[in-house]
Amino acid sequence: MRQSKLFTKTLKHLPKDEASSNAQLLLKGGYIDKLMAGVYSILPLGWAVVNRLEAIIRSELNSIGAQEVFLPALQPKELWSTTGRWETMKDILYTVQQADQEYTLGSTHEEVVVPLMQKFVHSYKDLPVAVYQFQTKFRRELRPKSGILRGREFLMKDQYSFHVSVEDLNRYYDMMKQVYQRIFQQVGLGDVTHLTFASGGAFSKYSHEYQTVTPAGEDTIYICQQCQLAINREIKADTPVCPQCQGQEFIEQRAIEVGNIFKLMAKFTEPFNFMVAGADGKPQPVIMGCYGIGIGRMLGTIVEIHHDAHGIIWPEAVSPYTFHLLNLHNDSVQADQVYTTLQLAGHTVLFDDRAVSAGIKFADADLLGLPIRLVVSPKTQGKIEYRRRVNDTTALVGLDELVKRHVQ
Amino acid sequence: MRQSKLFTKTLKHLPKDEASSNAQLLLKGGYIDKLMAGVYSILPLGWAVVNRLEAIIRSELNSIGAQEVFLPALQPKELWSTTGRWETMKDILYTVQQADQEYTLGSTHEEVVVPLMQKFVHSYKDLPVAVYQFQTKFRRELRPKSGILRGREFLMKDQYSFHVSVEDLNRYYDMMKQVYQRIFQQVGLGDVTHLTFASGGAFSKYSHEYQTVTPAGEDTIYICQQCQLAINREIKADTPVCPQCQGQEFIEQRAIEVGNIFKLMAKFTEPFNFMVAGADGKPQPVIMGCYGIGIGRMLGTIVEIHHDAHGIIWPEAVSPYTFHLLNLHNDSVQADQVYTTLQLAGHTVLFDDRAVSAGIKFADADLLGLPIRLVVSPKTQGKIEYRRRVNDTTALVGLDELVKRHVQ
Repeated sequence: MRQSKLFTKTLKHLPKDEASSNAQLLLKGGYIDKLMAGVYSILPLGWAVVNRLEAIIRSELNSIGAQEVFLPALQPKELWSTTGRWETMKDILYTVQQADQEYTLGSTHEEVVVPLMQKFVHSYKDLPVAVYQFQTKFRRELRPKSGILRGREFLMKDQYSFHVSVEDLNRYYDMMKQVYQRIFQQVGLGDVTHLTFASGGAFSKYSHEYQTVTPAGEDTIYICQQCQLAINREIKADTPVCPQCQGQEFIEQRAIEVGNIFKLMAKFTEPFNFMVAGADGKPQPVIMGCYGIGIGRMLGTIVEIHHDAHGIIWPEAVSPYTFHLLNLHNDSVQADQVYTTLQLAGHTVLFDDRAVSAGIKFADADLLGLPIRLVVSPKTQGKIEYRRRVNDTTALVGLDELVKRHVQ
Repeated sequence: MRQSKLFTKTLKHLPKDEASSNAQLLLKGGYIDKLMAGVYSILPLGWAVVNRLEAIIRSELNSIGAQEVFLPALQPKELWSTTGRWETMKDILYTVQQADQEYTLGSTHEEVVVPLMQKFVHSYKDLPVAVYQFQTKFRRELRPKSGILRGREFLMKDQYSFHVSVEDLNRYYDMMKQVYQRIFQQVGLGDVTHLTFASGGAFSKYSHEYQTVTPAGEDTIYICQQCQLAINREIKADTPVCPQCQGQEFIEQRAIEVGNIFKLMAKFTEPFNFMVAGADGKPQPVIMGCYGIGIGRMLGTIVEIHHDAHGIIWPEAVSPYTFHLLNLHNDSVQADQVYTTLQLAGHTVLFDDRAVSAGIKFADADLLGLPIRLVVSPKTQGKIEYRRRVNDTTALVGLDELVKRHVQ
């Protein structure tokens, strides 16, 4: 992509009404734009990151046989009355009227997915099965805050699994823990994200959150010094020892909840009377789990974790482009050659071909935070200055060597 | 994909409350599910088609430099009051309240995209520029009908271009006609889709629709027998001759509007006072065009055009899988080999490994409509029965020959 063609531009000043580093940097870099409190547009560079996050998650979920769907945002009141959540969640549900019908905008999709699966799943032989989607959710937050971490409209990966027994749910749930660990590792949050025990509600002892440690976090967690699992403050009083290893030494940290997994048991299948024929022919309730990852929240959290005073530092796996090519020549002969060669070799390149000063190009490269900055200029004498954003490692390399170093 | 693992099943009976062939077949095949009137869930097979449609469109739009974004559904009343459409479109806008604020759910995105571009585009040098998105739209249809052709919630590709002059808009608009022609050709609608003159509103003589001829269409068009362009009935009285070639012979047809393109001129940029500095330094209004394709509508229209009494007949470019492999052996030795070999060769395969009768497998294969059906059975004697869904061409081929015939 030629930067001169990119319609977004970096902003000169930090937006005043955004306190969080992630929103400041994403806005300043032109990754996102704020339409109103808690509602953001995702711009080309930000959308490229979202696509990479979704591709990583999709690949992991498809590998365990989960099936992708796309469920409606408009959901009839009747379904939400069936589960009782039209009342219990009324403070956060956006509602819409048409004639004498009432709808909610989905803040979650249990009320849609359970009746859907009920149409197709009739026997224990049809289980287990899991579906997921990437979709916009709506939540009537009174005071949206922390940039894109807590919005009124936000992208989620939500996933629902259905089982013939609690044992099978437990098996799947443990497998999902492995899947989530791999996902957070790939997007650059693995080392600072802790599986965290949280309140399980009335029907399950615990749920689990994935909490990423950062001072910008809204939550407080206690990390067990023996096994590295954590406990959310909401249950700390009731849980003085680690439920995993009985450790008693904890360190308190602020953290962002980037995902959660929940054993829903029969909470949502029972109200819809979703039963299957068991192996013995007798009807039995379907057991359910759910698994969420906030995509916008993950985007913001990655920036929160990976930035410095100059800008974002994207992990390579989620960066909108691998290379940021800066042309400081008066002509574009060498830069064009590098740009074309890298793209032919299968790499993604943002090519700063703008007629602006070297200082602006360097500052924007730091702000945008692509993993590898390449500079061609009269000073590089036909070679390319290669710098890794993460650690400032700099080297002078030839084009052939560069391509060999980065074999796709 | 092993069909035994696919959670959807084909339905035995046609849904009674769906009059249109496309909705009947898509529902019967488990491609979509109806949540309520005008609101559908997209299931794995349907989602795979949607992904292929989006990939075709995305590739064409990226090739002309359009940039992908993702804009909010929740939009503040103020923006819609600025353009006057809070009043003029109130019959079809869903509205949402929160405290003393009112929002609409986007039925289109001019009110969001114009102020967004205004933040980044300041000079004639920043133009032309075009952005697009694939997004859920909401429309308060009183009587949604024709299955997924006219919904309350639906997927759209919407695109907006911005120009320094009417001449530049005209140039881009003509280029978009070529792009749309290529898109409709690729998805299997090219031969029956006519560029159609329609009402241009107060600020433009004509807009253009892409109308696909089918008896199931809601619109009536008049196709010029000289140049094959068409005229929408809404302007036929005022347009007795073809605006393109002055032809006077027309054939009346029913048709579905699958896309439209519109010269918006300064209709939406003026209310927001979106001006740029011209080459002479003086401020001038930005000129705008918009370009839509209904994705759900395209899905339904393809089925409407490509089906027979037995089911859907997917064009290969948009089919959820290329091959439908039916195993009629008692064991899976041969079928597993074919399944694995084709996948290793880069093909997509739906493998009917279910323990059901051959009759059910054949009927489902016709209903689901994948382009190439492969049958392995004791009768095929180690070979594979190869049948094209579109014309029933059948042949007995070896696995090597099959792979050679279908080089990716």
